[in-house]
Amino acid sequence: MRASRPVVHPVEAPPPAALAVAAAAVAVEAGVGAGGGAAAHGGENAQPRGVRMKDPPGAPGTPGGLGLRLVQAFFAAAALAVMASTDDFPSVSAFCYLVAAAILQCLWSLSLAVVDIYALLVKRSLRNPQAVCIFTIGDGITGTLTLGAACASAGITVLIGNDLNICANNHCASFETATAMAFISWFALAPSCVLNFWSMASR
Amino acid sequence: MRASRPVVHPVEAPPPAALAVAAAAVAVEAGVGAGGGAAAHGGENAQPRGVRMKDPPGAPGTPGGLGLRLVQAFFAAAALAVMASTDDFPSVSAFCYLVAAAILQCLWSLSLAVVDIYALLVKRSLRNPQAVCIFTIGDGITGTLTLGAACASAGITVLIGNDLNICANNHCASFETATAMAFISWFALAPSCVLNFWSMASR
Repeated sequence: MRASRPVVHPVEAPPPAALAVAAAAVAVEAGVGAGGGAAAHGGENAQPRGVRMKDPPGAPGTPGGLGLRLVQAFFAAAALAVMASTDDFPSVSAFCYLVAAAILQCLWSLSLAVVDIYALLVKRSLRNPQAVCIFTIGDGITGTLTLGAACASAGITVLIGNDLNICANNHCASFETATAMAFISWFALAPSCVLNFWSMASR
Repeated sequence: MRASRPVVHPVEAPPPAALAVAAAAVAVEAGVGAGGGAAAHGGENAQPRGVRMKDPPGAPGTPGGLGLRLVQAFFAAAALAVMASTDDFPSVSAFCYLVAAAILQCLWSLSLAVVDIYALLVKRSLRNPQAVCIFTIGDGITGTLTLGAACASAGITVLIGNDLNICANNHCASFETATAMAFISWFALAPSCVLNFWSMASR
């Protein structure tokens, strides 16, 4: 996790008196060498709120961002599972493309969910410019691929179901469900992409 | 054009002597009332460069932006024309959707091209926040629709041409050409959308 870094935020300096007291107390217990670190730790505990104040909900490294990633991964996996459960999807290129795009989307969202969980556990922010740039480009590429796959599958599904009326010979319900799941996954991805791009542009 | 406004840029104030000379010269010719306007005009002529310095190439109100809009409109119109030239496109929903999306894309791009031409003619910048916001949202919506229509048509075209091999009974070449034109129109739209969003976020 070279990409993460501690949040830089304006912490009010603790009053010198409090610092001196803390340093003195620690110095009695553990020696003067540990005083600076303990005093800094005391200052951090005195101002725990506001650490993530600048991160909008849904940005990477926030619970909202983690939730969006999990929703993306879940619906991409659902689209993949539903489409793969039909036995005739390999005969249509667009459905194969949907399976490939869903796999990519699922892997990407799960990777970023792991990064978000790590950032939440160690209480670090992911506002590093390089990380945000990589997230934005990855979101843009996977989002475009997922939207394209969903639209292509929707075109085929509508052709089979409405234009040709050959649903009796095909798994129309499964195709429609997989397409809808892919669209939902894309709808969950769009806010992540927009937020990442916004935070990349607004720095 | 309520949305446009003059560029705010740091113009060096003309020397008071030059202003006084210009004002005096005009005052002789047309009376003191016109002096202020003429002096302001003289100041503008003295610093014509740098007026658009902050607009990146491709932003609305620049020649690059106008070029992008014209490319979008041209390829959307080409996709529309090629698709409408086939007699069996109404039998497939995705192709009808492509025609509708191409019409919308063409109208939107032509409207913004007219706005760009106006901005270039009167030498005004389109960096107004409301205008940029409207451009970004419109670009996002039309871009998503165009990409979706292009992908749906591509799915159908690949199904007809590669999966079912029934190109002999269909206008595969026209379908493929229209799909390619729609994709090119989307590729020309993407920079406009990204640039607009960037300039909206970075203010």
